[in-house]
This record gives sequence, C-alpha cells and structure tokens, in this order.
Amino acid sequence: MTNSATNLRLKLPIACIILEVIIIILFGTLVQYDDETDAKLWHKEIANGSSNYDNDFYYRYPSFQDVHVMIFIGFGFLMTFLQRYGFSSVGFNFLIAAFALQWATLMQGFVHGMHGGKIHVGIESMINADFCTGSVLISFGAVLGKTSPVQLLVMSVIEVTLFAVNEFIVLSVLGAKDAGGSMTIHTFGAYFGLMVARVLYRPNLDKSKHKNCSVYHSDLFAMIGTIYLWMFWPSFNSAVTAHGDDQHRTAMNTYYSLAACTLATYGLSAVVAHDGKLDMVHIQNAALAGGVAVGTAGEMMLTPFGSMIVGFLAGTVSVLGYIDITDTRTHGTDNFPPLASQPILEQKLKIQDTCGVHNLHGMPGVLGAIVGAVTAALATKDVYGDGMADVFPDIHSGDVEASFQGVRQAISLAVTLGIALLGGLITGFILKLPIYGAPPDTICFEDGIYWELPGEEGSQEELTAVRTPDETEKLNA
Amino acid sequence: MTNSATNLRLKLPIACIILEVIIIILFGTLVQYDDETDAKLWHKEIANGSSNYDNDFYYRYPSFQDVHVMIFIGFGFLMTFLQRYGFSSVGFNFLIAAFALQWATLMQGFVHGMHGGKIHVGIESMINADFCTGSVLISFGAVLGKTSPVQLLVMSVIEVTLFAVNEFIVLSVLGAKDAGGSMTIHTFGAYFGLMVARVLYRPNLDKSKHKNCSVYHSDLFAMIGTIYLWMFWPSFNSAVTAHGDDQHRTAMNTYYSLAACTLATYGLSAVVAHDGKLDMVHIQNAALAGGVAVGTAGEMMLTPFGSMIVGFLAGTVSVLGYIDITDTRTHGTDNFPPLASQPILEQKLKIQDTCGVHNLHGMPGVLGAIVGAVTAALATKDVYGDGMADVFPDIHSGDVEASFQGVRQAISLAVTLGIALLGGLITGFILKLPIYGAPPDTICFEDGIYWELPGEEGSQEELTAVRTPDETEKLNA
Amino acid sequence: MTNSATNLRLKLPIACIILEVIIIILFGTLVQYDDETDAKLWHKEIANGSSNYDNDFYYRYPSFQDVHVMIFIGFGFLMTFLQRYGFSSVGFNFLIAAFALQWATLMQGFVHGMHGGKIHVGIESMINADFCTGSVLISFGAVLGKTSPVQLLVMSVIEVTLFAVNEFIVLSVLGAKDAGGSMTIHTFGAYFGLMVARVLYRPNLDKSKHKNCSVYHSDLFAMIGTIYLWMFWPSFNSAVTAHGDDQHRTAMNTYYSLAACTLATYGLSAVVAHDGKLDMVHIQNAALAGGVAVGTAGEMMLTPFGSMIVGFLAGTVSVLGYIDITDTRTHGTDNFPPLASQPILEQKLKIQDTCGVHNLHGMPGVLGAIVGAVTAALATKDVYGDGMADVFPDIHSGDVEASFQGVRQAISLAVTLGIALLGGLITGFILKLPIYGAPPDTICFEDGIYWELPGEEGSQEELTAVRTPDETEKLNA
Repeated sequence: MTNSATNLRLKLPIACIILEVIIIILFGTLVQYDDETDAKLWHKEIANGSSNYDNDFYYRYPSFQDVHVMIFIGFGFLMTFLQRYGFSSVGFNFLIAAFALQWATLMQGFVHGMHGGKIHVGIESMINADFCTGSVLISFGAVLGKTSPVQLLVMSVIEVTLFAVNEFIVLSVLGAKDAGGSMTIHTFGAYFGLMVARVLYRPNLDKSKHKNCSVYHSDLFAMIGTIYLWMFWPSFNSAVTAHGDDQHRTAMNTYYSLAACTLATYGLSAVVAHDGKLDMVHIQNAALAGGVAVGTAGEMMLTPFGSMIVGFLAGTVSVLGYIDITDTRTHGTDNFPPLASQPILEQKLKIQDTCGVHNLHGMPGVLGAIVGAVTAALATKDVYGDGMADVFPDIHSGDVEASFQGVRQAISLAVTLGIALLGGLITGFILKLPIYGAPPDTICFEDGIYWELPGEEGSQEELTAVRTPDETEKLNA
Repeated sequence: MTNSATNLRLKLPIACIILEVIIIILFGTLVQYDDETDAKLWHKEIANGSSNYDNDFYYRYPSFQDVHVMIFIGFGFLMTFLQRYGFSSVGFNFLIAAFALQWATLMQGFVHGMHGGKIHVGIESMINADFCTGSVLISFGAVLGKTSPVQLLVMSVIEVTLFAVNEFIVLSVLGAKDAGGSMTIHTFGAYFGLMVARVLYRPNLDKSKHKNCSVYHSDLFAMIGTIYLWMFWPSFNSAVTAHGDDQHRTAMNTYYSLAACTLATYGLSAVVAHDGKLDMVHIQNAALAGGVAVGTAGEMMLTPFGSMIVGFLAGTVSVLGYIDITDTRTHGTDNFPPLASQPILEQKLKIQDTCGVHNLHGMPGVLGAIVGAVTAALATKDVYGDGMADVFPDIHSGDVEASFQGVRQAISLAVTLGIALLGGLITGFILKLPIYGAPPDTICFEDGIYWELPGEEGSQEELTAVRTPDETEKLNA
Repeated sequence: MTNSATNLRLKLPIACIILEVIIIILFGTLVQYDDETDAKLWHKEIANGSSNYDNDFYYRYPSFQDVHVMIFIGFGFLMTFLQRYGFSSVGFNFLIAAFALQWATLMQGFVHGMHGGKIHVGIESMINADFCTGSVLISFGAVLGKTSPVQLLVMSVIEVTLFAVNEFIVLSVLGAKDAGGSMTIHTFGAYFGLMVARVLYRPNLDKSKHKNCSVYHSDLFAMIGTIYLWMFWPSFNSAVTAHGDDQHRTAMNTYYSLAACTLATYGLSAVVAHDGKLDMVHIQNAALAGGVAVGTAGEMMLTPFGSMIVGFLAGTVSVLGYIDITDTRTHGTDNFPPLASQPILEQKLKIQDTCGVHNLHGMPGVLGAIVGAVTAALATKDVYGDGMADVFPDIHSGDVEASFQGVRQAISLAVTLGIALLGGLITGFILKLPIYGAPPDTICFEDGIYWELPGEEGSQEELTAVRTPDETEKLNA
C-alpha cells in the first residue's frame, strides 16, 4: 500500500531541516528582542518611569495563549472528524503550525517595517504569527486528506509570504481595519485553500470516499476542537486591538455573535438535515461562523444587538452552504456517501473542500468584511468620542471621512480575494509536481500512508482491546 | 425507531429561532455597553485620569475564560460518560449554554437594576451570565438522556428567570455573600433539576437501562470534563470577588479544598466500591465537591486549613452519596445494572438523577452554604482589618453584627431551596406536556434519536475501522 | 486476576486518609496567608499606597493556570497512550498531583525559610508546588503501569521532600538560576524515576508486553496531553521569573525553542522510524524537549536565535534516544514488540522506562543545564544592562563574575544528579517492599487491576456499542 512515492524517509527530513536551518540563519542575522523583551532596553524604560505593568505582556499574554490553543488544539482537533485521519489531522496541523509561526515572524517582520535592519519581536509579533498560521490551517482544511506533509510545508512557505504581503496592503497601504481577520485571515485562507484544492482536483477521489467520513468517536474528538475555537474566539478577535475599551468591547461583541450563531445553527440544522435530526457537521462548523463574521467589526461600536444579528446571519449562511441541492442519491443504493460538506462546490466547480472551509471561513469571512465596511462607514464622532483615535485613527485625525473608510474596507476585501485566488492558483500548480509524495486516489484520508500505526504488528491485540466476557470474568475473579 | 413525535424538523427550529429573535429584539431595545466597553465613555474616564489597566477587563478576563471553559468543556464532557450519548451531552450542553447566557444577561439585567432603563453589559455581566448558565447545566445533568432539546430550552427559559430572582433576593435583599455560588448556583441548580426529574419520573426507564452506563472510552472523555472543572474551579469561585486579596485568597482556598477533597475521594472510593477497586463515577464527580463546598466561604478568611477540612468533608459526603444501601442485586443475575448514581433517591423518592447531581452539587452546595454561614458569623475586625469592607461591607459599616450576617446566609439557603424546589415542580409539569418530542422509555440515553449518526448508511465501514491483520499487512507491504 | 495482594480496600484508604490528616494538621499549625492573600495585611499595603494591581495575583495567575493545565491535563493525558491504562494514567496522575501539591507546599515552605515559624502561601507558592508536582509526575512516567497507587503516594512523599532539599541547595545555597527547572524539575524527576525503575526492574515484564503499546484512540488521547504541554510551556518557564521583560522574554524564548524542536522532531522521525513513516511516540515526546532544554536559560538573553538552536538540538537528541540500536527483531516472529521507548536503557541498564522520560526529560534536562551554565558564563553588563539585577543578582551586585555563575550552574547539575540518583535508589528499595499492592508481572499496564471497568457485568453491551447494520437500520426506520 505504501510505496516509494509516498515514503517520507528523505523528502520530509530534507524539507524540515532545510527550512529550519534557513529560519535559524535568518533569525540569527535579522531578529532582535523588542523594547519590552530586552533586559537592557526595558530597564531603561523602567528607569524612565514605566512600571512593569506597562509591559505589553500583561495586556496580551492571556489572549495569546487562548489564540495558541485555537491554533494547535482548535484547528487540530476540529479536523479529526475523519475516521482514520486523526494522527494526520492533529500531527500535520502541529507540524505546519510550528513551521508557519516561525516563517510568519520573518515575513511579517519584513513587510511591516524593519527597525534599523532588524525585526523586533515580542508578544504582539507572536500573536500576529499565530494569526498568519491560522490562515494556513484554514487552507489545510480544504486539502485535508489529499496532501503529503511536504506539500503542506511548501504551501505554508508560499501562503505565509503572500499573507504578509496582503496584510501589509490591507492594513498599511489601504488603511483598513481588520483586527480579528475576517478578511486577512479567514477570507484569505479559505479562498487560497479552495483554489489550491481546485488545481489539485482529483476526479477519482471517490475511490477513497468510504474513508471520507466520520465515526462516532472521531466526531467527539472533533467537538473538542469546535468548542475550544468557540470559547476562545473572543480572545482571538480582541488579541491585538487597542488596550482598554477596545479589547473589552471586541471580546464581548464576539461572545454575543457566537451565542446567536449557535442558536441559528441548531435551528437550521434540524430543518435541513434529513429525518429532522441534527447533523454534527453543522454543529462542528457553522456554530463558529459567528466568530469569523465579526472579525472586522468586532472592535467597532457594533453593539451586542448588531453582533447578534451578524452572528445569526453567519450561522444561517453557513448551514445553508452544506445543503446538497443536487442530491440525487437514494438510500440503499449509495452505501458510502461522502460527507458532502461542499457538494455544490465539488459538482459545479470541481473543488473538493474536505472540511467545508467555504462554509466556515469563506462566506462568513466575506460577510464579516461587508459588515466591517458598513459599520466603518457609519462611524460618528458622537458614538465613538475620543475612542475614535483607537478604532479609526484616520477618521479621528480628519484625514478621511467615515464613508471613505468604508470604501477602503471594501477595496481591501477585493484585494484579499484577488491575492488569495491568484496565490492559490500558482501554489496549486507548484504542489501538483509529482515530487512531494502525495497519496494516490485510492488511499486518501488514511493515516497509515504516512504514520506507523499502532497494532501494525500486533493487531490481534487491538481487536481484543474490547474485552470478551470471559476475560472480564477472569479479571473480576 | 424515530417517529414523528421525536422528529425535530419543526419543533427545534421554531424554539431556537423564536427565542433568538426575542432575545435580539430585547437586546436592541434594552442593552448598552457599560462604561468600560463603550468607546466614548471609557475615553472620558481616561481623560479623567484612569489608566487602561483600571479597565475591569484585565482583572477578570482570564477568570472569565476559565469559567467559559468549565461551562462548555467541563460540563459538556463530564456528561459524555454515557456510552451512546456523547453527541447529545456535548451538543445539547452547547445549545442550552449558548441560549442561557443570552437570556441570563437579560434576566439578571432586569432584576439587578437597570441604568436609565438600560441594561449595561461588560465582563462582569458576562461572568454572571455564565454562572447562571452553569446552574441550568447542573439541572441538565439530572435529566440527562431523558429529555429533548426543546424541553431543555423551555427549562432554561424558566430556570434562568427564577435563578435571577433568587440571586436578587439572596444577594441584594438578604445581603448574603455567595461569590462562588454554593447556594445560588449549585444548590439552586441541583434541587431545581432534581425536582424536575421527580416530576418527569419514568417508571419504565429500566427499558433503557442497558444504555445508562459508560464504556471505556466514554469514561476517558468524561475525565476531560472532570479535570477541567477541577483545575479552573479556583477561577470560578474568584471570578467576581473583589480585586486584590479577595480574588487571590478565594482562588487559593479553592485550590486547597479541591486537593484535600481529591484525597478523600480516592480513599473512600476504594472503601465503598466493590472488590476494593476504584470507581470512575466517584473520581469524575466527588473529587469536584470541594470546589462546590467553598463557593460561599472561599472569599472569606477560611484559611487553607479550613478549606482543606471543608474539601475533605465534601468529598466524603459525595462519595457516600453514591452508596447503594438498598442494593440487593447479585452478580450474574443482573447483567446490566444502571450506574446507580443515585440509588436511594430513585428507590425512595422516585428521582432518577442521571449524573448524580445530588452528590456533586446538591449536598456539597448545602454544606457550602452552612460553612459560609458559620464562617461569616465568626468574622472579626481583628482578622479582616480594612479588608472587611470588601468581604462583608455591612459588617464593616456597622449595619449588622457578624452573627446576623451568619443568619442572613442561613436564611438565604432556605430561600434558595424553596425557590428551586417550587420552580422545579412547576417546570416539571410544564415539561411533561407531550409536545416537546421527548424520547420514549425504550430509547433514552441514545444519540440516534436526535442526531444523524455517522456510519448510519455505511456502518460496515465503521465496523472495520478497527483494521484486520490482513489489511494491516497490505498497508505495510 | 485480582487478588488480595492488589486489593486496595484497606491500603489506599489508609494511605490517603493518614496522609491527608497529617497534611491538614500541619497546615493548621504552620500555614498562613501571605501579605497578598490576607485581608488585613493586603489592605494595610493598600493604605500605604499600593494598588490592587500590584498584587502578584495579576502578574502570575494566568501563568499558574497554564501550569495547572500542564500538570493535570498535560501529564495525565500524555500517559494515556497505553491501550488499557487510560483510567490509571489520568486517575493516578490526578491523585498523586493532588497529594504532591499539598505536601510540596509544606516541604518547600520548610526549607525555603519560615516567617516567624509560619509558612506563607500565595500564588508563587502555588506555582512552586505545581512545579514540584511536575517532577513527581515525570518519575511516574518511568514506572507507569508497574506500580500501585499506594506505591506512587509513598514515592511522592519522599520525592517531594528531596526535591525541596535539592531545590534549596541549587537555588539558595549555590545561587544557581533555574526558573523553568531544567535541573530542579526535569533532570531531577527523570533520574529519580529512572533509578526507581532500575530498582523495581522486572525481568519477566515481557509477560505483559502485549499491553505495553498503544491503540489508535489511545494515541489520540495522548496527543491532547502533548499539545497542551507544548502550548503552555512558555507559561511554565516564565511563571516565576521576574516581572516585566523577564516573564516576557522567557515565554518568547520557549515559544521559539519549541517551534524549532518540532521541525527537528518531524524530520528525524521520518528518518529513524521504519518504512519512512512518522512515529507517534516521537511526536508525542520529542517535540516537547525544546521546552525542557530552555528551562534554565529561557530567562537569560538567549535570543530567539539561540533558543531555536537549543530547541533543534533537544529535538534531535530526544528522537535519537528512541532508536533501538540493538534491534534484532524480525517482522513476523515477534508479534508484540514493546513500544521500545528506551531499548538501550532496558537492555544495557535494566531500566524499564515506560514513557521514555529519559528522552523527554532526562537528556534534554541535562542539555538545558549545560546551556544555562554557558549562557550564564557569557552574561555581560553590556547585554543585560540594569536587567542584570533580575536575572543574575549576584553578578549585578559584583559578588561573582559571570564565569563563576556558570560554574555554580554546572555544580548544580552535578548536585541534582547526585541527589536524584541516590534518592531514587533508596526510594526504589522502599517501594520494593511487598506491602503496597503492586501488580504482578502478568498484569501490568492494565486498568482492570485497580479500577472497576465499565461493562464488567454487562460486556455484551460494550461489544455491541459499535452498532450492527441491522440495528442502525432500525434506528433509521
């Protein structure tokens, strides 16, 4: 089943070690502690009257750790829903996240301005690196089960670079606001990944379709991912907003948006799932759309009321995205239906979106960008007071009108979509080269191709792990 | 097995969407940012000399997130111990928590005083809403496996409302202290739920008893819930106590109480479980009783010594509650014993308490209330110093004697029990109406009735998910 | 299968209750709130101009909770990789951690200086107690599956005591720095545990070897432990470093070390695992070595560059430690190979190291101690500025040269190794007494010996928990 093509003995070590050595060299030549992590510089600030509490660490570290949990546990376990792809879901998520956060530190450092030829790092750069990593993991969701770890590392190299470029254009050139990343993280990651999936389209993927579904326990593991993402999304959206009311408000808006989204998700799931039952795939994904959709506007004066409306819409859109309007299967003739997370995309556009990232990150991300543009256009000095300086510094300074801020937000969405789609296209073709050890069509969604599975040499044992009554009796004797 | 009675296609969407629309309308008309989340108001405070660090967000957000984890992961996974009810345990927990925290914001806002006709929201209201939600989830534990999600939503609507009323009476009218909610959260939630379970008593529930037990993996999932509850209970009890020594002391008292409780639980479990082995049901539940039992007194000068004694007692009481003194079963004749989490309650009082909430929240909650009353009655200026103003403002101001504070605490327990039992009674009868899609006696404790289960159309696949040696060999070839 | 020797009915209750009663009495006579948890004393500080924010709770509580998660979830679930030892891994971890943190409070309090005959407790003592507990849990990893809970409690009593003594010598007498515990926690815990395992060597352990391996789901549960340890290690290393730049820098150095370590681990795993696949045992363990290896130097001006080199080396050393250079097995003749986590240690030194703690904590801990000594020896006023006072107070005050600080660090490693090995030796002989209910060679690595297993009396049910197609059809009817 495994063969030299998917053997990782040379490919993965070469990729990992070359990349890590490059990173270490670049860090050695380019990266420095910032003023708040450097012993000498921080103590100069202390000598100038700062208190240790002014160190940004105390404002942001708890949020950073929540974001960190979302990246490694949230994304990692969300993707364990596949019955035999748990090792790869958590394990490749772990690998590419550990790589991407280092690479992102460098790429974001390059484009966001160097300090005397050096990249300065501290808690805020750590959060931003994790954010960029999140975008890569969203793309991973679209190609889950169909790519080798080497392909994923190559994808990460390119995607992180383009993410940094896009982020720079959106935030610095265009002056848009996007603290929670509706555009820069979710829209970018989703459409980049979908385009990669399009180029890597496998017409014969149905040969693996019996593995492209969940089992009872894998769905429970996936719920660990879902719930952690849901709980910590308020920290995600508020992690890099301004101190004080901004962080406080962003967290609260996100909390309400998610709560409303969850009610919408459960209500609609029962409507669209067959037999009037709930469908785990909706709960695992659509209930999170409310966090995506307030990624841009969460820091604005959206109000809890507005947040709930946005969350409710996001959940609705997301569940509806899972409907298979072309469904012609009849019970009994098709014993192994795929999860059908993106039936329309697959049938009309030849995009095989394993995790349904279009429903969770794509559409809600675009919705979030639009909500952000509208909310920005409606900003008034009367509502924001002096807080305008934190949320919309250009409006506060009089450089732009609120309506123009709205236009900048909208342009940013278009730019993000453009870079994501073009970048995904190019990346897809690079990943199509037959040198990365990608799995054949017949053994996608299968851990055994890249992992030594337990019980490989002792599988009788595994089969009797569920103990027979006899054994149990003996144990109780 | 499913039939129109339990089909959710209409019932659940109607419940979710009507409730969410009502909530959104009420939020639109009544809810406002408080001074610390509103951009304009907070910047006025900044202009008046406040620092961003004075924003309550930084004092309470880490605690809030810990509480949030307890609500969604802790309670959700604690209830996954049932072999085939994991989707419902985590999933319904998720649904009713997302609903209850919104409804609680409104109900608590109404009764705790409006500001110019508006409810002000911020981090403290978010924590309090999560607390109220916790109470509903405790009640959920008593009726787990025997109720439809629509019933649970209706129960939440009523219980949240009565919770807010009781909380107002206890904290504002009676002037009792109960920061960690021994009374308002645990006692209230437990006895409310037990009374609901009493009214919903199913004499023929033994038809489902073979499903009312755990399997190996479900017990491990449940331990995720247990451990998270245990670890973050110090944050729970200290989340809304006064800044400074109060939060610090409450967290520490809870930490020691839980540690002592755990030792008592393990020791007693080996005594009472048959064959001198440990019983998972004790570990999963009784080890947490120490957190419940210092919910009231944790912020007081209970000392680590006092906290440990309370925790030790709570663990003891909780384990003893699981003993089946009426046990007449003999091995071999009864192949499928129920978990027997509340054998006495069931046999004597006809209360079928699925999760044993009486042992985890009921008795330890009452113990915590008594400990709180005694500790309050013993408060002296000599011990508390100026800190008395934070813990017992009425004693500090001279309005009441310490002994009278103790009396107020005791009365609060009685009031809480009364409202919980009466409220549970009424709610039980409302939930008994045959319109909510409750499961029949034969298929309780079964996810399949409300969830599309994976492998429903492809269960061969599921059965072979444990690979045969042949397959494994091929994979290794 | 169970017999009176392993029956816990008397042994465990006696151990738990006697120990807890002793602890409670000692707490009652010796332990007091410190200045920041005592109502009266803190309010005196407030009256003297302190702000509530100066309370150390706000500097350290988020880190404490991350450490707490590592201790109870991280260590607990990391050890669930064994197929039938999940209850014991999580459950005994829970028990001995709950005990050890109480005992550590007392022992650390004794040796680190009493205040007027009293031990003062607050957030820092809580973190230190959790740290000491971590050391015991490392030793637990070496003897996992082969010891009774009573043995583990006895081991904890001794190990905590010696930990406190060693910590006192290293930090206070020798004046070494070791905030993240490369020496005091990891090296100490690993070599103590390995020596205990040596004394408890079981020549006939291969009778249980078919249970000394993982299954698919148990490896996924273990990944929960791994990922939590990985994510929160920055909090672990920075939890007790000085406020401000020190905590900030330590967290960041650890973050980069771990990321580089992970890339090294994946790359090397594919090289050394057979068939060019990845091996879960490497990922679960070696990816964490980067956190261990910057436990001493993390707070120093190691730079992200230096941290990455250290992490990369640690991952490399750790993966290589798992290689079985004496491997003579051939496929097909040995159906049940042990996990071979420490083949060399077992075959050459008769140390059966169940979890491979030598690879994860032992070698990386020694590496971390060396890195710390070198980094300390290179410290200059030019690099640290006034920050030297926090990191190396004795160099700052001119009491010692940097090079001598390096020497003190190196001596500390030697002292730690000596106390750990000698302590482990003595403890091993004490644990060898046949009075603790240790499992026989034939049923090691087996929960059933100490736990009531679900399905014991109803195992048919368990076997049909995976539903047959017929049943499923009925459910869908």
